[in-house]
Amino acid sequence: MNRHGFAFTVHARCPETAARQATFDTPHGPVSTPAFMPVGTRATVKGAMPRDLREIGSQMLLANTYHLHLRPGEEVVRKLGGLHGMMAWDGPILTDSGGYQVFSMGDINRVTEQGVRFKSIVDGSMIDLTPERAVDIQQALAADVQMAFDHCPSDPTDRKLVSEATDRTHRWLERGVRHHRATGGEDRGQALFGIVQGGAFEDLRAASVDAVCSHDLIGYAIGGVSVGEDREAMRLAVSAAAPRLPEDRPRYLMGVGTPRDFFDAIERGIDLFDCVTPTRHARNHMAFTTEGIRNLRNQGYAEDPRPLDPNCDCPCCTQYSRGTLRHLSVTQEMLGGMLLTLHNLRFFHRLMQRIREAIPAGRLLALRDEVVEASSRRLTPED
Amino acid sequence: MNRHGFAFTVHARCPETAARQATFDTPHGPVSTPAFMPVGTRATVKGAMPRDLREIGSQMLLANTYHLHLRPGEEVVRKLGGLHGMMAWDGPILTDSGGYQVFSMGDINRVTEQGVRFKSIVDGSMIDLTPERAVDIQQALAADVQMAFDHCPSDPTDRKLVSEATDRTHRWLERGVRHHRATGGEDRGQALFGIVQGGAFEDLRAASVDAVCSHDLIGYAIGGVSVGEDREAMRLAVSAAAPRLPEDRPRYLMGVGTPRDFFDAIERGIDLFDCVTPTRHARNHMAFTTEGIRNLRNQGYAEDPRPLDPNCDCPCCTQYSRGTLRHLSVTQEMLGGMLLTLHNLRFFHRLMQRIREAIPAGRLLALRDEVVEASSRRLTPED
Repeated sequence: MNRHGFAFTVHARCPETAARQATFDTPHGPVSTPAFMPVGTRATVKGAMPRDLREIGSQMLLANTYHLHLRPGEEVVRKLGGLHGMMAWDGPILTDSGGYQVFSMGDINRVTEQGVRFKSIVDGSMIDLTPERAVDIQQALAADVQMAFDHCPSDPTDRKLVSEATDRTHRWLERGVRHHRATGGEDRGQALFGIVQGGAFEDLRAASVDAVCSHDLIGYAIGGVSVGEDREAMRLAVSAAAPRLPEDRPRYLMGVGTPRDFFDAIERGIDLFDCVTPTRHARNHMAFTTEGIRNLRNQGYAEDPRPLDPNCDCPCCTQYSRGTLRHLSVTQEMLGGMLLTLHNLRFFHRLMQRIREAIPAGRLLALRDEVVEASSRRLTPED
Repeated sequence: MNRHGFAFTVHARCPETAARQATFDTPHGPVSTPAFMPVGTRATVKGAMPRDLREIGSQMLLANTYHLHLRPGEEVVRKLGGLHGMMAWDGPILTDSGGYQVFSMGDINRVTEQGVRFKSIVDGSMIDLTPERAVDIQQALAADVQMAFDHCPSDPTDRKLVSEATDRTHRWLERGVRHHRATGGEDRGQALFGIVQGGAFEDLRAASVDAVCSHDLIGYAIGGVSVGEDREAMRLAVSAAAPRLPEDRPRYLMGVGTPRDFFDAIERGIDLFDCVTPTRHARNHMAFTTEGIRNLRNQGYAEDPRPLDPNCDCPCCTQYSRGTLRHLSVTQEMLGGMLLTLHNLRFFHRLMQRIREAIPAGRLLALRDEVVEASSRRLTPED
């Protein structure tokens, strides 16, 4: 696939699984996949400077349409140079459609075939979001990739609910694609990804892939898999959808997740991920390391002169001790959250880098064995 | 003056004033003076990475003994590599003695000839601080420069109060100097600066200089001048003290201040400054610029695509618009405070740099005329 500055080139496949290593080219540069996209909700990855993000290996950032529509508003973003200008980030950016936030945190007033009416969390005003409006808002935000407006069902195991939401998602995609094309579409340097729904039901997922892929889009996403369901349901949803998605397009699993989730999904052919976990955990003093998960507020770290993760090359681990990080956490100093944000993101990016190297070398399952158990352990200061 | 890794070399004097341009060498490198020291209260300049501080021109940092004694405690700092280790800062560092904080914000239980007993703001426990203990604590913190424990009078215009506090400061200095020498002193790579008190009284200031300078110290400070008195009282105190201080030692005016204060003091022979204003203002969305002071929360900046200060080369002004800064301020994003912190410090450092260039060129008073009025104006978005 190669069009309008977008391309997707598979370089290697894993002999043992459906994993692939590829490059996703965008108008703002390439993304080597599998890749993790840090979340910059309100046009900033909380507590991180763009230069530092680049240096720790961030390739593509995500921003949230819902939050940016409320503040500062998409027309303000447009006037300030779009998200690339506002974020001082000249690499690729993706915006979600707002659907997930509207359905998960919005004070929803009404869902109709036309769209969703919800109450602003900022000023209580009523806002209508439709597939067309989501396209328009995201055009103003001007990321490289925009997401179609979908209906994300709150309970992925309620078949009736899921079925209705999935069908509506398909009809909304139809409208979104049409409006995206009518308003310049890919010619404007902006891709539209469709979102597969279908909850925890294999047949609904398969049918959703067929419906979504009836549109020739630059990429496809799997949605509705990070809404509190268990790991088995997530695996099932990805297993049902991923193999049916076109081989020559990027596949994005929305809102996932942990190292274990990454392997589960990558083995099933997923290329792109985003999740607030590394950045949110960082601000709550939780660090992902190659040895396991550490809570830096623990008194046991107070006098520990060792680096957080002896195997990490990030600005936090090469310069600061666990004792200093504990001091910064306990005193609520901004620097604590800043350093752990860079560290956690570096951990996720290095994991993806190792996965990208393991795929062509046929070592993906061996890497999984080496990494997953270790990185999910809850460590004490004595460990 | 040149001893134990410390030196003070005057390179140029201003023909019209008592200003001098010099280098203050410390065991952790040189400081080109006049210089402004950013305040890193709890072993971190709030919201700033050390690399960024270095790049915007920070030479020497300050940390607060009072806060670090309470948390994490000086013995923890020692175990974590001293302040240089904890702060990941290999340049010069200065610690205050804790006196200013004890007298200005401590819940004081008792002041005696021996020292001060006060209540910890962290856990309510009783803490005794004496001239000897201040030396010991600061030795554990291991900055390049430590300050003598002084009695900073709360009202610089109350002659009886000031006189008693100043005399006590001298007796405490005597004890501090003795204890500093007995415990290794300058041989350990740590200078002790004495502090001149005397409030707003010329004769008390002059007498205080005589008493303090009877000790052959590596540097001298003027204290008690940033406790709410008016600008005229501050000028008087500096005028009375500075000319009597030895020519070949650095002179540090504690807790000052604004661009106007800097010129007032530098013209009277001051070399070093510290103040929380640039960093604290930054976190309150206030920016110092070459055009004046701007409050970035103002709605009028919402769509302003211009840089905060078109004359500034900092990471904030070269990458972000006023509109983006306003968005980050209104949404309370960490990045807003981080960027304005670097900007405000860069403004202060560049001002000092211009002053250092103006002194040998005989342009100090011309620079003052150019800078002071402009930088103290309160600007609106329309300006």
